[in-house]
Amino acid sequence: MTREDIFELIQKKQSFLCIGLDTDLQKIPSHLLKSDDPIFEFNKQIIDATHDLCVAYKPNIAFYESMGANGWNSLKKTLEYIPKEIFTIADAKRGDIGNTSKMYAKTFFETYNFDSVTVAPYMGSDSIKPFLEYESKWVIVLVLTSNHSSLDFQLIKDKDNEMLYQKVLQKAQKYGKNIMFVVGANRTEAFKEIRKIAPDNFYLVPGIGAQGGSLQEVAKHGMNSQCGLLVNSSRGIIYASSSKDFAKEARKKALVIRNTMSSILKKASLI
Amino acid sequence: MTREDIFELIQKKQSFLCIGLDTDLQKIPSHLLKSDDPIFEFNKQIIDATHDLCVAYKPNIAFYESMGANGWNSLKKTLEYIPKEIFTIADAKRGDIGNTSKMYAKTFFETYNFDSVTVAPYMGSDSIKPFLEYESKWVIVLVLTSNHSSLDFQLIKDKDNEMLYQKVLQKAQKYGKNIMFVVGANRTEAFKEIRKIAPDNFYLVPGIGAQGGSLQEVAKHGMNSQCGLLVNSSRGIIYASSSKDFAKEARKKALVIRNTMSSILKKASLI
Repeated sequence: MTREDIFELIQKKQSFLCIGLDTDLQKIPSHLLKSDDPIFEFNKQIIDATHDLCVAYKPNIAFYESMGANGWNSLKKTLEYIPKEIFTIADAKRGDIGNTSKMYAKTFFETYNFDSVTVAPYMGSDSIKPFLEYESKWVIVLVLTSNHSSLDFQLIKDKDNEMLYQKVLQKAQKYGKNIMFVVGANRTEAFKEIRKIAPDNFYLVPGIGAQGGSLQEVAKHGMNSQCGLLVNSSRGIIYASSSKDFAKEARKKALVIRNTMSSILKKASLI
Repeated sequence: MTREDIFELIQKKQSFLCIGLDTDLQKIPSHLLKSDDPIFEFNKQIIDATHDLCVAYKPNIAFYESMGANGWNSLKKTLEYIPKEIFTIADAKRGDIGNTSKMYAKTFFETYNFDSVTVAPYMGSDSIKPFLEYESKWVIVLVLTSNHSSLDFQLIKDKDNEMLYQKVLQKAQKYGKNIMFVVGANRTEAFKEIRKIAPDNFYLVPGIGAQGGSLQEVAKHGMNSQCGLLVNSSRGIIYASSSKDFAKEARKKALVIRNTMSSILKKASLI
């Protein structure tokens, strides 16, 4: 997918919603536990109920790998089930020396055929570039995350008064074309600054819903002429109900967000 | 395992060698490809040939996950095969928001029963602390890595002239007791400084062998009164030969390193 393809999808669906599939055996409705593959069954019903409302799905890899080989099988089935037009994100936060990152890229881009993967920047360019060798795939680099302790290191200032996350933005932008950045929804004070440094890139924005960020604020400071945002909600949508009606309730939650997104896009004259 | 247990193991084996299991279908001897599980078969023969010479094995998780569910099954069998007294390291470089890091911790400490896992520090304390909730397990935090582009961010200086990796060392040391640090073997100029900041911690040191670091230099600047070093070699040992004699040749390579380590330990009066 190109940047233009993603923007067209956003326009068509009047949505820049990404739904996070943090699927957890401890949290899915108990009636599903009887099925052969409860994780896939849950994802399937969530996808059936929401695929017209979102532009991306983001399986959180930790949840699948914690279940061993079975979890990876459920992940594979989920990936194959997601409609082809929808952008898929492996939320994996990988990154290692070159020959190892190459294997991680193989995992997510070949073995599982994701459109994109999240990566951590601590080890620098040669931990990220192997992912960029896949021409039509995307790399989503951590910049300013939504968790409290992101402040431990990401805001460290150098002698020129630039913060670590700003350095990451500047450098990673030059690594290649198909790069997005992770910016937490609660970092609204920084969004303006970030847009100055990286005006054209898409940002993956976690942290609305369970983590408390505001969609309106994110859009106000983070949107660009191609929308430039994929805003994620995971728990707030997929765990809206723990009963048999879970998929219907998930749809209701997704619909509220999608309708707000539709108004925002209209107000910005992007649709 | 406690720090004392690890030191005792080092004394008993006269070795602080960690063998990296970066097992790759493209690189293992071709006669193994006929077996039911070539990855496990390769690891099994490497372990049989080297387990008396090393104190740790470090499977590089990227290589297993790139093969999908089968790779994870081979990993599980490998973990179960490694003798119990030997320290096991999941080289996974994970790290995410708290509830997700908790799932990564579950993966490596429960599903696969590793003794330790490598983690990336970019997201700060709450991405690392969930791993420390497992009392007898270890967290190995990236500090100063062996790859060229580690310099992109790890050496950024703040206003007090402290570099990012030094900040990581200082902060991460306070996260808990069972913490080790990754320091590349080629960073010998920094080892002295690092030992000042973290005198007691063990360091996992990759980068001798294929990546060119010197064991003598590492020992000279990095060793403490409990050795404090686990020095890794992966490709230099496990791919010593691509013929049927691969395990025997791997043993020869491991033996040379172990014998050097034995002299170093004697010279330092640690055995």
